[in-house]
Amino acid sequence: MVDDGLEVLDDDECIQLLSEESVGHVGLSVGALPAIFPVTYVLDGQDILFRAGEGLKLSAALDRNVVAFEVDHEDAEHCRGWSVLVIGVAAKVGDANAPLPAVLPTPWAGGRRDHVVRITPELISGRRIVGENGRATVAG
Amino acid sequence: MVDDGLEVLDDDECIQLLSEESVGHVGLSVGALPAIFPVTYVLDGQDILFRAGEGLKLSAALDRNVVAFEVDHEDAEHCRGWSVLVIGVAAKVGDANAPLPAVLPTPWAGGRRDHVVRITPELISGRRIVGENGRATVAG
Repeated sequence: MVDDGLEVLDDDECIQLLSEESVGHVGLSVGALPAIFPVTYVLDGQDILFRAGEGLKLSAALDRNVVAFEVDHEDAEHCRGWSVLVIGVAAKVGDANAPLPAVLPTPWAGGRRDHVVRITPELISGRRIVGENGRATVAG
Repeated sequence: MVDDGLEVLDDDECIQLLSEESVGHVGLSVGALPAIFPVTYVLDGQDILFRAGEGLKLSAALDRNVVAFEVDHEDAEHCRGWSVLVIGVAAKVGDANAPLPAVLPTPWAGGRRDHVVRITPELISGRRIVGENGRATVAG
């Protein structure tokens, strides 16, 4: 299935692609303003786990906000790539009823990032741009 | 200046970094849900320009929504990287009072992307993770 020149990916393909990457983008609201922050993440089943300090991402999780999580991969030489978008509720991991998962992402930055946030997908969507030799047409 | 293990970048550094990349992430609301979409972009002064079809990104521009625009760069081998976040109003380019800019981004995907969206930054912020040999500490 092609949508506006992009191949539409099914949920299994999206989860498979998410499992192969390690850096994604969290989209949330800060006040009434949108914001995007890169994070290192791991998958726990279909859930996304990432570390957070005492900041905006933790606040979103404590408030159980609906957030966006996006991962993409580009091959600039061949104008190819894909992106997967997850929308789900963010929640802090490690409360009494939610034991810490065994596999946790490693943050690159220093500073304290003692908290773990879990995004449980409610909606998953993905698109792929296929290069010159593929199925979809690539614009000049 | 270091914030939570990350070096804080000034506006000039942020714009310089944006000028060196070509793929960014637009963050906007779809209904009440957050969403993130990758786009190819160019800078026009400090403004961000990207192409859009008849979809969500164009709708955001026609409604002059406040959107987020984020660009990042990762060096996984050295656990280094940076990210720049712009927040500003999105507007469709090419109305009577806004002539089309000479330099336009080339979309990778096929399909019609006849419209151009301009994001004029109201807020610019950036952070850099410095690797083992740099100034900031990197977490294991």
